Amino acid sequence: MVMHYPNGQPYRTKQLSLKKSPYPTATLYGNRGMTLEEEINESNQYYLKQGIAVIHKKPIPIQIVNVDYPKRSAAVIKEAYFKQPSTTDYNGVYKGHYLDFEAKETKNLTAFPLANFHAHQIEHMKACQKQGGICFTILRFTSLKEVFLMPASLLFQYWDNQQANNGRKSIPYEIIKKQCAHITYQLQPKIPYLTYVDKLLEQIL
Amino acid sequence: MVMHYPNGQPYRTKQLSLKKSPYPTATLYGNRGMTLEEEINESNQYYLKQGIAVIHKKPIPIQIVNVDYPKRSAAVIKEAYFKQPSTTDYNGVYKGHYLDFEAKETKNLTAFPLANFHAHQIEHMKACQKQGGICFTILRFTSLKEVFLMPASLLFQYWDNQQANNGRKSIPYEIIKKQCAHITYQLQPKIPYLTYVDKLLEQIL
Repeated sequence: MVMHYPNGQPYRTKQLSLKKSPYPTATLYGNRGMTLEEEINESNQYYLKQGIAVIHKKPIPIQIVNVDYPKRSAAVIKEAYFKQPSTTDYNGVYKGHYLDFEAKETKNLTAFPLANFHAHQIEHMKACQKQGGICFTILRFTSLKEVFLMPASLLFQYWDNQQANNGRKSIPYEIIKKQCAHITYQLQPKIPYLTYVDKLLEQIL
Repeated sequence: MVMHYPNGQPYRTKQLSLKKSPYPTATLYGNRGMTLEEEINESNQYYLKQGIAVIHKKPIPIQIVNVDYPKRSAAVIKEAYFKQPSTTDYNGVYKGHYLDFEAKETKNLTAFPLANFHAHQIEHMKACQKQGGICFTILRFTSLKEVFLMPASLLFQYWDNQQANNGRKSIPYEIIKKQCAHITYQLQPKIPYLTYVDKLLEQIL
């Protein structure tokens, strides 16, 4: 019996998520982000209700293989697989701007590993930015309990350097602390990231 | 054995989709839109590759109930249900603008039934428009083989009138022909809707 969060996400015990897995790491990184995601979803609900912004998390992409259509009840998906998403998790519109971002967590204390990102996510953010979209990452150092809004430009810089020059595989915490906005938790919305997007807009525009 | 499109959508035979169904109509309207959706997806791929715009169809929201984690292979979703989406199907960024739209088909010859839309989709488009997003519907009269880009304003007008005054339950074809952009099919992209979004932007901005 697998337990679930109200949003349908399977609840995985600590033991399970820490266990070394034979699967691609993508899924596990996703799990680590769960709690941050929930906080962001809640914040987005607040922003939506207040008429401040319309930002949604995209549904998890799934490859459906087998569906049952029972006569008197809803269709049941009997076999399906998780697919690699081709975009970031969140997007929406705020003050006329297209926002596009990822939410990522790390247990690392000194740096944010680039392995948290996939090439297609970076490509997607670059493409969005070219169209005038505002791209960033909300990242949390779980152990430090610190949340930052990292502009895509910083991520691209480290990502491209890693790709081109076999450069470092993570962004140092010290750099993040200096160059990213430190998000302070609030009561409502919990993660008031749009306040920091405003600052980002001031710099970009 | 259920057959599938390459994108994982179950392939339903004509017989099955025409059969009167005991389920809420939402699913069936979705099926009707399949081919138009595929054409739009293809057009979006073209726009993406050419660096013209970044527009994606959102994955189908699913409520996952049971997942199997076999030891040496990918996780299998064993039980899941289709959820009512809380937004429109498509969004993305184009020339600095947030675009948000639905794709809908009808077999009706004389009018486009408002039953093709759900209240939450209209609410979502209204909220996006308030934030400066560009909202519209790509609609096809299947039998007439005609595709239109309908600005959200026209949809809102008929929707609100239906709600408030128990007004007509569809938008007449003649009105659509007069007030919407008639999209001409092309080789690439098949549905060059961004050309018509340009015209919409000229009117709005």
